[in-house]
Amino acid sequence: MSGILTGMRIVEGSAFVAVPLAGMTLAQMGADVIRFDRLGGGLDATRWPVAPNGNSHFWAGMNKGKRSIALDMRSPRGRELVTQIITAPGKDAGMFMTNLKVRGWMDHETLSQHRKDLIMVSLKGDRHGRPAVDYTVNPALGFPAITGPEGSTDPVAHALPAWDCVAGQLMVSALLAAERHRFKTGRGQDVEFSLKDVGAAMLGNLGIIGDTAMGGTKRQKSGNALYGAYGQDFICADGQRIMVIGLTGRQWRGLISATETQAPLDALSTSLGVDFDDEGMRYIHRNAITDLFKPWFAARDAASIGKQFDELGLTWSLFRDFESALSNDDDLSTENPMFSEIENPGLGRFLVPGSPLNFSDYDRDEPSPAPILGANTEEILGDVVGLPDVEIASLFDEGVVKGPAGKNMRPAA
Amino acid sequence: MSGILTGMRIVEGSAFVAVPLAGMTLAQMGADVIRFDRLGGGLDATRWPVAPNGNSHFWAGMNKGKRSIALDMRSPRGRELVTQIITAPGKDAGMFMTNLKVRGWMDHETLSQHRKDLIMVSLKGDRHGRPAVDYTVNPALGFPAITGPEGSTDPVAHALPAWDCVAGQLMVSALLAAERHRFKTGRGQDVEFSLKDVGAAMLGNLGIIGDTAMGGTKRQKSGNALYGAYGQDFICADGQRIMVIGLTGRQWRGLISATETQAPLDALSTSLGVDFDDEGMRYIHRNAITDLFKPWFAARDAASIGKQFDELGLTWSLFRDFESALSNDDDLSTENPMFSEIENPGLGRFLVPGSPLNFSDYDRDEPSPAPILGANTEEILGDVVGLPDVEIASLFDEGVVKGPAGKNMRPAA
Repeated sequence: MSGILTGMRIVEGSAFVAVPLAGMTLAQMGADVIRFDRLGGGLDATRWPVAPNGNSHFWAGMNKGKRSIALDMRSPRGRELVTQIITAPGKDAGMFMTNLKVRGWMDHETLSQHRKDLIMVSLKGDRHGRPAVDYTVNPALGFPAITGPEGSTDPVAHALPAWDCVAGQLMVSALLAAERHRFKTGRGQDVEFSLKDVGAAMLGNLGIIGDTAMGGTKRQKSGNALYGAYGQDFICADGQRIMVIGLTGRQWRGLISATETQAPLDALSTSLGVDFDDEGMRYIHRNAITDLFKPWFAARDAASIGKQFDELGLTWSLFRDFESALSNDDDLSTENPMFSEIENPGLGRFLVPGSPLNFSDYDRDEPSPAPILGANTEEILGDVVGLPDVEIASLFDEGVVKGPAGKNMRPAA
Repeated sequence: MSGILTGMRIVEGSAFVAVPLAGMTLAQMGADVIRFDRLGGGLDATRWPVAPNGNSHFWAGMNKGKRSIALDMRSPRGRELVTQIITAPGKDAGMFMTNLKVRGWMDHETLSQHRKDLIMVSLKGDRHGRPAVDYTVNPALGFPAITGPEGSTDPVAHALPAWDCVAGQLMVSALLAAERHRFKTGRGQDVEFSLKDVGAAMLGNLGIIGDTAMGGTKRQKSGNALYGAYGQDFICADGQRIMVIGLTGRQWRGLISATETQAPLDALSTSLGVDFDDEGMRYIHRNAITDLFKPWFAARDAASIGKQFDELGLTWSLFRDFESALSNDDDLSTENPMFSEIENPGLGRFLVPGSPLNFSDYDRDEPSPAPILGANTEEILGDVVGLPDVEIASLFDEGVVKGPAGKNMRPAA
């Protein structure tokens, strides 16, 4: 794969979402990303969703465009090989990302004895090094308490591993910033952060800490309403559910105009003594406002509403499930140049996304599939570690490394 | 603020979450980030949460460590100033990030006439350039359909603007990757992406597209359960709700051991004819498993459970709301070196996060607060555009620019 990062090499020791996502993001920008795993596969080797044959769609999604090597890290020789792969020479190499429990042999201090300018970026659970996952960080921060139907007291966790996704992208930035610094100074870097800190910082970034600390109104659940202005879901005549946004002044005026509700809204604002040009007033009185809009939506099909809203440049969408999104949304099809239908080893042919980023200097490539575990063991021992053929053969023979699908023979043998 | 990106200058024309978050992330790594806005402030100038005095906690959270200039972009002189700020000379400058509707004068083609190696990164709503926000992207992709209580048919949108947060971090990576390329080649770059594509790609990255396309089991709502393995919320004897994870084999065995449920679980697995060492079986039979764990949690206080789980190294957390998180969690306090209590102009003194990233070559600085709109107008016209004092004065006089709090006089005047 060519791309803006072509020539860079990053080594990844990882599992689950954040770090694999970071590596995949770099691979889809053209970097050579090598993921190493223990012989039988890492903790996420069979992560759901899985196909009936047991192969993981999750693995396939998170490891696109990487190279995979499988080795026995309990053996001294296996650990030595990992060290050599991470610290291999090359001006654009010597970068390591991980969320594995970093034991002595794989910490920055030890590894940088083999390559002084090593850049290492590690993600921990929390700042103390205690384990944490998206499913524990999110409840601790309070988001489930404001998610779900108005009036309900049951917390609702998000289904998207959002903190993992944010942390993974931040890891890419950390790595690129550290490499920029290495260019300028020749110095390596040990970068550490935690999943919980990523979430805790966002709580502050969104203004929630300041508001809470200064005794602002306690934020409640508000169903699918947009927080702080107007945005609401409506059921249309055909039973479809539509989301429509009145966040900016332009969106709000467009929504009123489309639904021909200026007069009743004026009456409502007069009777309440508030000005709906103030976005906060639209939020506070959202239910009264929604009651005025409801009949208009209930009398029309989603298709005709969507057509009219598009003509007016309004901001809206349908609520879909994964099946209908994939069947009906052109953005989730090969109409979208980000997507291609490719063959995925062990899983079949289906729609696969490349990077969302378009760089003017590079054409969009067809995305590369994820390797099967160990698919590139032999070539990595050759082109990265620089081992002679006979030594590679003996590593396979001794079971220190394995090839694709757990074979302890070289694919060519 | 010093940091790994000290010396870099990025100009930001933005509103809402993604692009301001990108700029703030760069500012908190030491870059000089200049946000420009129209005279009265951008679309997010009063975004909720707001303080009783009308000042926005959201603005304060999203613009930390930046410099702010306010100018009249309807006037030719104002547009000329923005062009000069974006394309000002400097090896580590000439970078522009935006989600504003890019009119002719502010597109890459026009701006790069003033600086050939300009790097511009633009975020659109969808790939067609139609408007989209987190609140519309999320329903369209199908996540609300799998969020919320098992058995419910009502879609539940997430409260965290997750796609915005992911897109903002990806924007930082795009910018740093493009700047790396400029270092090597001298070439500028026009980078474009859309919020909806960020979400659509993640749908594929998580394996959901492959699973759905290949006819996998339709994914249902599963409350607060962890998808694909075991993880569940429980009510403790003191009424607190706790989340506990049995995702990896080690976590799962630890949970069984702590709750002393090996015998009933063995009986359950025998009667079902399944092996709970298979993480997917734990998910499929989660409700039966949860019934076996429940009494143990119901008989103990959250504090004693937490203590025991910590000793065993288990992965767990409490469900909190924002208020109790801020009162009771040390990670949301100055105990956490990421946080400082600082004075925030127009809002008061409260806990503010710096970057979650720790770079070994840099100490953690106290985070800088967000500027009030226009706080740095005068200095930016001087040190970036290079205008003489008299010309700056006349720009204030003519109302082309404004100082802090909308003053059309220079702060020193």
